[in-house]
Amino acid sequence: MKHWSNITLPIPKWLNTWSAGIPQTFPEMNQRMFLVIDLARLSIKNGGGPFGAAVFNQCTGELIAPGVNWVVPGKSSLLHAEVMALALAEQTLGSFELASHGLFELVTSVEPCCQCLGVLMWVGVASVVCGACSEDAQAIGFNEGPRSLYWEQELRQRGISVTRKVMRLQAVEVLQSYTGEIYNSQLQASIQPR
Amino acid sequence: MKHWSNITLPIPKWLNTWSAGIPQTFPEMNQRMFLVIDLARLSIKNGGGPFGAAVFNQCTGELIAPGVNWVVPGKSSLLHAEVMALALAEQTLGSFELASHGLFELVTSVEPCCQCLGVLMWVGVASVVCGACSEDAQAIGFNEGPRSLYWEQELRQRGISVTRKVMRLQAVEVLQSYTGEIYNSQLQASIQPR
Repeated sequence: MKHWSNITLPIPKWLNTWSAGIPQTFPEMNQRMFLVIDLARLSIKNGGGPFGAAVFNQCTGELIAPGVNWVVPGKSSLLHAEVMALALAEQTLGSFELASHGLFELVTSVEPCCQCLGVLMWVGVASVVCGACSEDAQAIGFNEGPRSLYWEQELRQRGISVTRKVMRLQAVEVLQSYTGEIYNSQLQASIQPR
Repeated sequence: MKHWSNITLPIPKWLNTWSAGIPQTFPEMNQRMFLVIDLARLSIKNGGGPFGAAVFNQCTGELIAPGVNWVVPGKSSLLHAEVMALALAEQTLGSFELASHGLFELVTSVEPCCQCLGVLMWVGVASVVCGACSEDAQAIGFNEGPRSLYWEQELRQRGISVTRKVMRLQAVEVLQSYTGEIYNSQLQASIQPR
């Protein structure tokens, strides 16, 4: 007879020591992006993928939840940086819909893939801010999967604002420093133009 | 100072008592679909959403992991039936890519939404089997979000087979029996034609 336990998506232990040394709030967009690029850098250093993200209270700049790409160490394809930050934000607020608690912003060091876009649709964030572009991730061997060409419009149609290319060069620099595993490579090999 | 714990996505406690009364294997497609439609029915009865899903070993028919829509009781928008089944399958196998462990099939009582499609792209299943159609879910107030019109082709291009409308009438019957919460209604209200 089968027995299943609650799904546990592990977060890196160092996130909680890292958080001791950061400011309480991040009022400016560049401060938020600086933080998630730093998370991407720390992720690489600790064996994760080269992606960082975080959910902030859009108005106060309070950090609600951080995220890094932890797919390989955490043994779950769900553990993209954006999904970690979004799921951790919901867990922190104890809610399946952030929109009912205020305005929240997802800041991510690289534009979201098909999975992260799908997940963020139902979380209820008010805005998304991206650093590097999908082509920057593609250049090092990752890609976004079958994502709509019109993803920005689809977010905006749902009242979610989108800002791209914030500190793009710095975000790209971190991507290019990555020498770790390109997982899901067999799934990515068959990508076709849409 | 902030402190975050591992992300916990709760599964219903009754899943483990339910599993005591089911067969060991499900060789036929209709048996697998019957099981996930039954999961959808049980989910409604226990306060969840009207959706069921499961991951099977495609060849042996062994049930690897079940899933139900547990968004409201589990306080997480990630907890769609497909995501629960896929994440639980990865946890059961201890792997971020099912494809490296054999051929696995996702069977779902209703066609996947944008989130579930995005998630399943990276899990590495070999096939997807669906019962009710998206329009059946829309008819009771749920919808699929900004999903590509070409989602079937996009899956097939990645080597994932898709079978639709398996026991559709029975799956629709369960959808229509649902009188619970239609969550994310404000996000769904702004859906535009694509």
